[in-house]
Amino acid sequence: MIPQEKDCSKAMLSIKDALEAVSGNWKLLILYALCSGPKRFTELKKEVIGITDKTLARELKNLQADKLISRHVYDKTPILIEYQITDHGRSLNKVLYELWNWGLSHRREVIG
Amino acid sequence: MIPQEKDCSKAMLSIKDALEAVSGNWKLLILYALCSGPKRFTELKKEVIGITDKTLARELKNLQADKLISRHVYDKTPILIEYQITDHGRSLNKVLYELWNWGLSHRREVIG
Repeated sequence: MIPQEKDCSKAMLSIKDALEAVSGNWKLLILYALCSGPKRFTELKKEVIGITDKTLARELKNLQADKLISRHVYDKTPILIEYQITDHGRSLNKVLYELWNWGLSHRREVIG
Repeated sequence: MIPQEKDCSKAMLSIKDALEAVSGNWKLLILYALCSGPKRFTELKKEVIGITDKTLARELKNLQADKLISRHVYDKTPILIEYQITDHGRSLNKVLYELWNWGLSHRREVIG
């Protein structure tokens, strides 16, 4: 399915890009939490159990840089800042579904 | 598509299992090289450019432990040892295709 180029480095580069975008301990958990709707920093912190303020702030910045989430500031009192998954972030769904599905069969295969 | 359980830790665990099985610098390159047929250590070393003997030996062991590849010893002179992708290894195809596909769109989205 992936083109069998003699120089497979381009195909590998795409796969590495994707792996990097979702790897790490927190990114997927944050994206998962945002799947059910936009959330404030404090709401995310409650949902992503165990994450520190510093790590959450850093990961939110990384996810924004990767255009997987967007940050919205609403002129209210007090000011409301919300994070929302983008269409690009939602497009990860299929990848995550395949990873999830394969991960299940992998656990059955390896652990038995 | 992934069950939205209140405790999403099980779904995350499956995704993490899958990510761990394919992450790292070499695993995918080795699997990719084995897609076209069984290969000897020296053939793999030639195809997976830049890998050292030590790293290749270690990664082959890891891939065997994950049942993604199998090792076959043939009683010939000299003895022939070949590595082959397993059905379980081949089942990664769909995951890799989705990762590859999403990685391409991610590159377009982020780099523009």
